[in-house]
Amino acid sequence: MLATLDLAGVFVFAVSGALTASRKELDIVGFAFVATVTGLGGGTLRDLLLDVGPVFWVHKPHYLLVTTLAAVLVFFTAHRVEVRYRLLLWADALGLALFCVVGARIARDAGAPFPVAVLMGMTSAVMGGLLRDIICNELPLVLRRELYWTPALLGAVVAIGLDGLGLPPAAGGFAGFAAAFGLRAAALRFDLALPAYKPRPGRPWGRDVPASALRPPPEP
Amino acid sequence: MLATLDLAGVFVFAVSGALTASRKELDIVGFAFVATVTGLGGGTLRDLLLDVGPVFWVHKPHYLLVTTLAAVLVFFTAHRVEVRYRLLLWADALGLALFCVVGARIARDAGAPFPVAVLMGMTSAVMGGLLRDIICNELPLVLRRELYWTPALLGAVVAIGLDGLGLPPAAGGFAGFAAAFGLRAAALRFDLALPAYKPRPGRPWGRDVPASALRPPPEP
Amino acid sequence: MLATLDLAGVFVFAVSGALTASRKELDIVGFAFVATVTGLGGGTLRDLLLDVGPVFWVHKPHYLLVTTLAAVLVFFTAHRVEVRYRLLLWADALGLALFCVVGARIARDAGAPFPVAVLMGMTSAVMGGLLRDIICNELPLVLRRELYWTPALLGAVVAIGLDGLGLPPAAGGFAGFAAAFGLRAAALRFDLALPAYKPRPGRPWGRDVPASALRPPPEP
Repeated sequence: MLATLDLAGVFVFAVSGALTASRKELDIVGFAFVATVTGLGGGTLRDLLLDVGPVFWVHKPHYLLVTTLAAVLVFFTAHRVEVRYRLLLWADALGLALFCVVGARIARDAGAPFPVAVLMGMTSAVMGGLLRDIICNELPLVLRRELYWTPALLGAVVAIGLDGLGLPPAAGGFAGFAAAFGLRAAALRFDLALPAYKPRPGRPWGRDVPASALRPPPEP
Repeated sequence: MLATLDLAGVFVFAVSGALTASRKELDIVGFAFVATVTGLGGGTLRDLLLDVGPVFWVHKPHYLLVTTLAAVLVFFTAHRVEVRYRLLLWADALGLALFCVVGARIARDAGAPFPVAVLMGMTSAVMGGLLRDIICNELPLVLRRELYWTPALLGAVVAIGLDGLGLPPAAGGFAGFAAAFGLRAAALRFDLALPAYKPRPGRPWGRDVPASALRPPPEP
Repeated sequence: MLATLDLAGVFVFAVSGALTASRKELDIVGFAFVATVTGLGGGTLRDLLLDVGPVFWVHKPHYLLVTTLAAVLVFFTAHRVEVRYRLLLWADALGLALFCVVGARIARDAGAPFPVAVLMGMTSAVMGGLLRDIICNELPLVLRRELYWTPALLGAVVAIGLDGLGLPPAAGGFAGFAAAFGLRAAALRFDLALPAYKPRPGRPWGRDVPASALRPPPEP
């Protein structure tokens, strides 16, 4: 069950990676690499931090097959999609909701205490997409105004919270997934956001930093 | 002692992360995530490289408590601070000085040879802030003109150098911290810098790169 | 043999890191740090993912000596080079060709199945340079139009493919290196590229994303 959800999360994140590769007009090998890093990145970091032996996909090559398939699929079909960026956002949202549950549970099973397991769920959910955006030199999705970290946090808390109450795994897993995906979907649909930090009016950022203090990035 | 300094370093780096989150006007969950990654990032990388089992905070949730507290504190008070960017620089400088000593010693205790221990001190000191700047899409502090890597190098060398001479740990630790923080503070205060590499006059960077060779980053 | 090639790869990647540091006009400690991260980054990630104990350079300080030497060398001589950016590209190409062979073989020796070993070869070959570009806030080389991932893929497949056929290691290693370097060199020389993904004509990227959906990066 956990393995199936994990594989589904890998697939949708790989799709989001391939869609980002399409925005950068990479070739098919680039698609496969970015899709693989996006699909496997979050779980890889989780496994490294938990020190649970070789990372989950190192002896299971079918994960690479899945990410490569996602890349090939997107390479040959994405131009048929009307709104690729919106598709990217929804694939990312699905991956986020799947991975926050899976990541938190794997951490819990490895003996991590509750807050660490929640952070591991967030890490699994957020880091693959963050790597994708960094590798492709995109503005990271996590900096968008609508709720992004909060759905991951909520899904992880709900899933392992219900697990802790002794509910059957399917219940906790579904509830966690639904909470995370529902909240992220609502955020995308209705521009939901927690109150953002606001600087004092009339005191814009950087006022105290002379422009000369930071070197402008040289021409590439 | 090492543990207390480590926790203090985690706190000040978390503050610097939260201040960066405030520059990006994130919400409170974003503050907590960025503060956590900044506070724990350098030490996490150090532990991963040294392969000393699960990373230090995985079974010690109080580290997450400290980074979350720092985030909440900054979220509700940063607008009262006159010069947030300057505060960020000083919090970063404190974290740098604490972590170069702690990181080098932990590496030494794990059996790393002298140059590797020094690099681990630098890694602990620099990588949390680098992750912070990458995640938040800021120009990395490490590229600023004033001394940044050198104070971390100096602090690590002084601390484990004095340890190697048989001085009591408090002496080496304090001397290393003072050397690193003093040098970074002087660099910030007086714009100290080592001679930077200078291209030949009249031969600007990139002369040999036609603009067409690099694709412009597409609109997000 | 593997160790010598590895060291050579570390050296040329360190040179490429130092050349990037020169583009950013860093000081000599910055040169050494960027050269070290570039030279050791790919192999470090490979070793972390394979979980083969402490990372290869942690108990072998001569790797740090090599990266530091490369940094010092470039710091004092790069201004004599006519075309530094071109030199960077070629050093990067050499490192790419060396590391895709070495990385794939190390993974194979650690028991990874064929596709995972190929990915590890690509990871070793690509990630050091990617880290270099991210740390220095440069447009990542991997996003350039000419073949970049494909030579790494080819070199890894050729090397461990021939190994699998029972050829002597020198043959597979040389063939893999020659295939990767030859293809990357041809790509640089003749602007070779696989067909890139193309958006539908008349449907420019981001059309479906209102500019207001993404927050502009604030002034640093």
